[in-house]
Amino acid sequence: MTFAERLTGAVEHGHLCVGLDPVPEKMPDLFQGRKQGVAEFVEAIVRATAPYAAAYKPNLAFFEALGREGDEALERAIATVREAAPHAVLIGDAKRGDIGSTAQRYAVALFDRWGFDAATVNPYLGADSVVPFVERPDKGVYILALTSNPSAVQVQHVGGDRPLFLRVAELAQTEWNGNRNVGLVVGATKPEQMADVRTAAPNLPWLIPGIGAQGGDLPAAVRFGMGPLGLPSLINASRSIIYASKGDDFAEAAAREAGVLREKILQG
Amino acid sequence: MTFAERLTGAVEHGHLCVGLDPVPEKMPDLFQGRKQGVAEFVEAIVRATAPYAAAYKPNLAFFEALGREGDEALERAIATVREAAPHAVLIGDAKRGDIGSTAQRYAVALFDRWGFDAATVNPYLGADSVVPFVERPDKGVYILALTSNPSAVQVQHVGGDRPLFLRVAELAQTEWNGNRNVGLVVGATKPEQMADVRTAAPNLPWLIPGIGAQGGDLPAAVRFGMGPLGLPSLINASRSIIYASKGDDFAEAAAREAGVLREKILQG
Repeated sequence: MTFAERLTGAVEHGHLCVGLDPVPEKMPDLFQGRKQGVAEFVEAIVRATAPYAAAYKPNLAFFEALGREGDEALERAIATVREAAPHAVLIGDAKRGDIGSTAQRYAVALFDRWGFDAATVNPYLGADSVVPFVERPDKGVYILALTSNPSAVQVQHVGGDRPLFLRVAELAQTEWNGNRNVGLVVGATKPEQMADVRTAAPNLPWLIPGIGAQGGDLPAAVRFGMGPLGLPSLINASRSIIYASKGDDFAEAAAREAGVLREKILQG
Repeated sequence: MTFAERLTGAVEHGHLCVGLDPVPEKMPDLFQGRKQGVAEFVEAIVRATAPYAAAYKPNLAFFEALGREGDEALERAIATVREAAPHAVLIGDAKRGDIGSTAQRYAVALFDRWGFDAATVNPYLGADSVVPFVERPDKGVYILALTSNPSAVQVQHVGGDRPLFLRVAELAQTEWNGNRNVGLVVGATKPEQMADVRTAAPNLPWLIPGIGAQGGDLPAAVRFGMGPLGLPSLINASRSIIYASKGDDFAEAAAREAGVLREKILQG
């Protein structure tokens, strides 16, 4: 199955991507101090939100910080998604970027070791860091274009009338999308620039963070993200779903948040 | 001990950084097909090169691609450096970059889980991705400015008269170096731009890849890298040292290459 086929099938379940960013201190009391607490928490979140999710996006930083326990939690999260939400696109949010021979090893790590369907990639090193990922038609690559954080402007807006984030979008569409497996990361916190990115790369699907805890603009995300000529986009929420409650009702609360957001996205 | 103190002490042993990029197929025949082969190979390389190295730089991609065996090899590499070369700066070449709350988790992973003295960081997200790393005076942060790979120009040269790589260098020196623990990654493959980076950020130490397999300009690296007003620089070689021989003399060959390169750097 190509990535394009997998993504198209996944969005029959909506456009919500659930971000998995486990931080031990923020987990419900139920899981505090337990040896496999992180793995159990993430598994419970995946099972509760499976009816509402088109994709899951574990951010590797949160697992790597926990050492071997984190690696085991990531393995279990991936296995749970495959079982409870077999339709879902599994995105490794790792934002890797390195020279060609090294980027190739990162692609092996994300696509073969972990088995992700897609990965996020940082374009600071140019094509060399991107090509080893996009060579595989069965895997998707979301390239950071316009990120959701405040200081992104220090770098991504350099370049005057043709700022860097638009050049990255153009390169992604015109040079790197030969396998129809390339998308862009476009933060929902910058509605004006979202319109420019859509113009620069009309055919690319987006992965849109910044909704929820980061206060992004959902209507703009739907308007610019959801109307591409090409493949469909995904809107991500992490903290607002997985930490919806710290009590014993955390799973119901996460499911409710996911369900509400899924509907809001569909209604635009 | 601050990072500045550690780096200053390390360069009493020269300016050579040995990059650890293990690829099973390229290892000496001796280690082929062995269960702990990667860990044993990397340990042998570290022990052989310890007299000549001021720093070691495992690139995490090569370990992550190997799954749990790779994680164990990285643990053993780090332990071996601490034992055989206690003076050496241990740099986690991970090139991470993410929004603030996530970058903080990557800093925990690199500095606390693995115990690196320093890490490489990708600046595409601006200050948010850098600040969680530079907050710790005991840890060093090498920010990607001008990388050694051909396609870097697609992104790093955007910006006309003040290209992105120079803006990153200026930000690193003027805004992020309050703890005197920030350096730059500057590839040895671009001598003209190296001069510009040195002018833009006269006080920052460099980590210089691109010597050896990538064909960089060693005299230029020494000229622009070694004469800073601030902290001393490190020149990295990976493949040309660790794969100097595929035979049973691999350790002697690696030691010889490291020794020769160490001397060449000292002689400029």
